[in-house]
Amino acid sequence: MREQGLTSASSDKLADLVNVNSWQIRKDFSYFGEFGTRGVGYDIENLATQIKKILKLDTIRKTALIGVGNLGTAIMAYPGFKTYGFHIAAAFDNDPRKIGQKINDITIEDISSIDSLNKRQVDMAIIAVPEEAAQNVADALVEAGVKGILNFSPRRIIVPKKIKVITIDIATDLARLPYYIP
Amino acid sequence: MREQGLTSASSDKLADLVNVNSWQIRKDFSYFGEFGTRGVGYDIENLATQIKKILKLDTIRKTALIGVGNLGTAIMAYPGFKTYGFHIAAAFDNDPRKIGQKINDITIEDISSIDSLNKRQVDMAIIAVPEEAAQNVADALVEAGVKGILNFSPRRIIVPKKIKVITIDIATDLARLPYYIP
Repeated sequence: MREQGLTSASSDKLADLVNVNSWQIRKDFSYFGEFGTRGVGYDIENLATQIKKILKLDTIRKTALIGVGNLGTAIMAYPGFKTYGFHIAAAFDNDPRKIGQKINDITIEDISSIDSLNKRQVDMAIIAVPEEAAQNVADALVEAGVKGILNFSPRRIIVPKKIKVITIDIATDLARLPYYIP
Repeated sequence: MREQGLTSASSDKLADLVNVNSWQIRKDFSYFGEFGTRGVGYDIENLATQIKKILKLDTIRKTALIGVGNLGTAIMAYPGFKTYGFHIAAAFDNDPRKIGQKINDITIEDISSIDSLNKRQVDMAIIAVPEEAAQNVADALVEAGVKGILNFSPRRIIVPKKIKVITIDIATDLARLPYYIP
């Protein structure tokens, strides 16, 4: 809505966009204080700022990418990360032909130096390595102080409870489609 | 569990694996008939077959891939699709250097021939093109009779209601992490 040049939004309009009831929108927002004005709605700029703050998306987050194959390269080029303040600050691979090369101004580092993340304020990482390597990489990331992992490997990785892992399983997403196809 | 050589599963064990209550497991399954035996549990082979049938994952699904860039190439190499019977049967790109080349035994076709999918029993497609091209590709797929789309473009695509679209928005998945990081 901001991109469309709009400045305020009613709960009805927001409800439409996310496919819930407008009372749910008002109720949910009310947990975090008073964002809206009765009869006017929500100031879009302020609402976006508040939501980003609640979700802790109001700071730049340094993220490491592990695995610069086809998937990793696609992730580096992905335009959507900037929206939420993500900055891919380091990239690692184990292929000697890739190490030292630059991609998007980031020099690819040897995967054995993941432990350096500890001193570099990088607390999130994206795993884009072949599945048989995913657990070892996860172990190294935890050791290096990483707190959140986005995992593209179809294999489930095991980490201590305090580490948050979100797995993107492309096949499972695809598997949701046939049910809806006549 | 099947991979581990097990043949039967209790609802308690299943509940553990998916992090819900065991009564929920029993209740959900009961909607589809009697899968289990009291005191013994569920026969894993039969359960897997029944669930695949319910989710319409019990047949081979021909799927088209649109866009054979880094992401598309990674998708072609993705090992997880076979689990659910997906077979990437066609790949399209608009780059003359790619058209005619083979990747995983699939010859890359000109994107302008998407309409040929109509006669080829391909009813699912994966969109892996740059975001500015996604809507045009979606239009062509709908025209060609595709019923389900897995969309990797961060742009929302608009299709008729009867077409099911699942969007994988990597940035939004990544954006769920900071909330959990101290």
